[in-house]
Amino acid sequence: MATFSWTEEEILRCCGSKRFAKEMVSASPFTDLDHTLRSARDIWFNKVDVAGWLEAFAAHPAIGGTSPSVSQWSKEEQSAAMATATDFTLQELVEWNVRYREKFGFVFLICASGRSTPEILSELKKRYSNRPIAELEIAAQEQMKIIELRLARLFNSGVGPNTSTTT
Amino acid sequence: MATFSWTEEEILRCCGSKRFAKEMVSASPFTDLDHTLRSARDIWFNKVDVAGWLEAFAAHPAIGGTSPSVSQWSKEEQSAAMATATDFTLQELVEWNVRYREKFGFVFLICASGRSTPEILSELKKRYSNRPIAELEIAAQEQMKIIELRLARLFNSGVGPNTSTTT
Repeated sequence: MATFSWTEEEILRCCGSKRFAKEMVSASPFTDLDHTLRSARDIWFNKVDVAGWLEAFAAHPAIGGTSPSVSQWSKEEQSAAMATATDFTLQELVEWNVRYREKFGFVFLICASGRSTPEILSELKKRYSNRPIAELEIAAQEQMKIIELRLARLFNSGVGPNTSTTT
Repeated sequence: MATFSWTEEEILRCCGSKRFAKEMVSASPFTDLDHTLRSARDIWFNKVDVAGWLEAFAAHPAIGGTSPSVSQWSKEEQSAAMATATDFTLQELVEWNVRYREKFGFVFLICASGRSTPEILSELKKRYSNRPIAELEIAAQEQMKIIELRLARLFNSGVGPNTSTTT
């Protein structure tokens, strides 16, 4: 049976929490993608503490951000948003991101995959009125969606060096 | 009419979040204790971000802790617990505090005023099984009870230098 495992560094590309990466390595090997995702959800929601959530959020660029450190995966996930952005909406997005960060202390997180800039902006404005703890939980759920997409990419990126086949 | 206000330093004795202290100073002067507490609740739950909550939690000694930096107020709040503690329960409390901190990343917070050590220990064990975000919210509610007690002490400690009377 083929089993799958990755290094902490590979897992950190999916989620910037070191505790998440360590726990995923401990929980491996995984039998298939479904097993991987079930373990990831359990670890993210039940074992990573709040500081670990904030650490993972801090590893994301702001939506619309153009820092050179933005990963290729982030760029691809935000490609629909960028394709639908006008200078005006992009400017508004940047301004609302700043307001959001001032209120909540972390970057506005949304699983941007396939979403247009007006949709993202409308969601940001709606979520801005939330209490900080409510917004923390929503951001953690969005982060989980991003982790799932990225783990699937890692999974589908071919047989890694740590994949082993046993009978 | 008498009005009441305090400095950031005085507010920080009630709650270690700098944002809380700044917002309380901005919201002052207060007309009475009830006005003070209503403002404090609004600021704590709606304006202090999650990092600010963690900052406030970090300002507390662990229950049963004997660090020289423990404030007189903390000592007095924990006096019922200490009076009912045996060496055995105290040792158990210390060990569970360590486990709690490892899981959640912050000190176990409970409004200890009037509670016995066995009560606190039983509550700690029960809360240990919570998800990190659920525990964050409970800890924030306990912190609010502590803030209320301390603001009442500040309020009742006599007319401070910033109390003013207008007609």
